[in-house]
Amino acid sequence: MIKHVKEMKVDIKNMRGGIGEIETVHHVHPEELPHGRLFGTITVEEGNSIGFHEHHNEVEYYLILSGEGVVSEKDGDKIVTSGDLVVTGNGEGHAIRNEKKEPLVFIALILFTD
Amino acid sequence: MIKHVKEMKVDIKNMRGGIGEIETVHHVHPEELPHGRLFGTITVEEGNSIGFHEHHNEVEYYLILSGEGVVSEKDGDKIVTSGDLVVTGNGEGHAIRNEKKEPLVFIALILFTD
Repeated sequence: MIKHVKEMKVDIKNMRGGIGEIETVHHVHPEELPHGRLFGTITVEEGNSIGFHEHHNEVEYYLILSGEGVVSEKDGDKIVTSGDLVVTGNGEGHAIRNEKKEPLVFIALILFTD
Repeated sequence: MIKHVKEMKVDIKNMRGGIGEIETVHHVHPEELPHGRLFGTITVEEGNSIGFHEHHNEVEYYLILSGEGVVSEKDGDKIVTSGDLVVTGNGEGHAIRNEKKEPLVFIALILFTD
């Protein structure tokens, strides 16, 4: 079955107390994803961010598609670019921000660990 | 934790009796993905394909990133381009081929349905 981009749910909202509004295109409706709750593409425009938050009983992956991001983890800030994967395991936390002109675009995937 | 693209396992092989060799970059090692066995980026060069195959007790998603593909499902062939999602549910089958010059690049995600 082919699902076209126009059929996908789009959220535009502040995320986790970060800066600005963030767009998420939900490729799969959260209730329809087996053993998970997010498979989407997130776009963070210049100056915007997703605030720091933790994941419990789940793991989140950010796969960077384009742009450059700064990821905050408990051991510090790290630069990520196209092809990099941010892995946030059960009990860990992260934030991400875009300090560049080019939009930061990444796939976000949340899978349950139980 | 940041995993850089250079740390990812890359397979280059014929897939499912299709044409040519197909590159898969495994973002997460198959054994490390909760409730799944593939989270990767697949590149199908001009003239190449992944042959028809079925999925049982799992669902596969192809999220098209760039290029154009022809997806074969039991009800026929369909053109897919950037932003489209191919959903192959439990018990269903699919094949995909690239008839264009530009490489066909997509995210592949296989999650178990049990």
